[in-house]
Amino acid sequence: MANGLSVVCLDLEGVLVPEIWIGVAKTTGIEKLMLTTRDIPDYDRLMQGRIAILNEHKLTLLDIQNVIAAIDPLPGALDFLEGLRAKTQVVILSDTFTEFARPLMQKLRWPTLFCNTLTVDNANMITGYRLRQPDGKTKAVAALKSIGFRVVAAGDSYNDVGMITTADAGIFFKPPASITREYPAIPVANDYTVFMRMLSEKLG
Amino acid sequence: MANGLSVVCLDLEGVLVPEIWIGVAKTTGIEKLMLTTRDIPDYDRLMQGRIAILNEHKLTLLDIQNVIAAIDPLPGALDFLEGLRAKTQVVILSDTFTEFARPLMQKLRWPTLFCNTLTVDNANMITGYRLRQPDGKTKAVAALKSIGFRVVAAGDSYNDVGMITTADAGIFFKPPASITREYPAIPVANDYTVFMRMLSEKLG
Repeated sequence: MANGLSVVCLDLEGVLVPEIWIGVAKTTGIEKLMLTTRDIPDYDRLMQGRIAILNEHKLTLLDIQNVIAAIDPLPGALDFLEGLRAKTQVVILSDTFTEFARPLMQKLRWPTLFCNTLTVDNANMITGYRLRQPDGKTKAVAALKSIGFRVVAAGDSYNDVGMITTADAGIFFKPPASITREYPAIPVANDYTVFMRMLSEKLG
Repeated sequence: MANGLSVVCLDLEGVLVPEIWIGVAKTTGIEKLMLTTRDIPDYDRLMQGRIAILNEHKLTLLDIQNVIAAIDPLPGALDFLEGLRAKTQVVILSDTFTEFARPLMQKLRWPTLFCNTLTVDNANMITGYRLRQPDGKTKAVAALKSIGFRVVAAGDSYNDVGMITTADAGIFFKPPASITREYPAIPVANDYTVFMRMLSEKLG
């Protein structure tokens, strides 16, 4: 059992739930929405492109929320997360939006989530997004360290590298081969059993 | 519904669960363990006294854990907390210890808890405690504000005043009369219905 002074910071999409935008792309049939931070590491460029596509196709926030409500956590994710929450504190750090995350958070039994918000016009069209702060995942890890926590961070993508290297220890979960080649020093877990064992070891 | 950029920081004992040490005092019959931060605002003085009493009575950590496992959350606390977690993010800030809190956290469905740890010797006697940092509740609120959150804090006792006054907004929940006289500017909720309404208003 880890002591009370540790926190695990987990990425959401690709670690506990499927990539939300890929789900939206599949249901709507809009192929350009298949792109993620794995493809375009510049998050603002990626998001402005997504918003333009939604407007072009006249898809409202409610349309997207209806798609997301049908998405389930990854197989085994809930058991993994419940096991981890019984061992230590968990904060999910995500670049997603409150408006998208809620049904998934309910299915994951309301873990704590630090993320962002969307801006929406009177016609329910998404007009933009509001980051809590630039590079929010990395800064959240730094803030948790600054108040006395040992922080272990894990994610699957380029936008997790900052928090992983800022944390006291970090792990990639099912990353694409391009990332593991680029960051060979960061250990990799490819299933929840190995992931839990590695996290427990790093919690100390 | 509050936006994704808000966090509610809640005290644990007196807000969601009964005072743990009072439960221990009642079960063990040791009257001196009835004292809390409501009586002795100097937390270190209070804790060193408690540890000395436990040692004097040869009570181990396991003895105390067995008492705590029989404590339930306050009536209505679980429903209140589940409702709040569906609206916004919640972090429980407590001066208690991981070793004591676990069974209560399980009954509250594993909300995120930032607290402290105990040190224990080979005979399972409590020898001391380790604060995550001095004034940890106040500093946790300040850290959450520093990463872009609007923070609303609530507690019942002297050791909550720092986090309440550091937060963007704060509430006392069922405080003793002595505290409300001393801090008349901090609004008071005396039941979970009013508490939820006041928190929702302050989340904006």
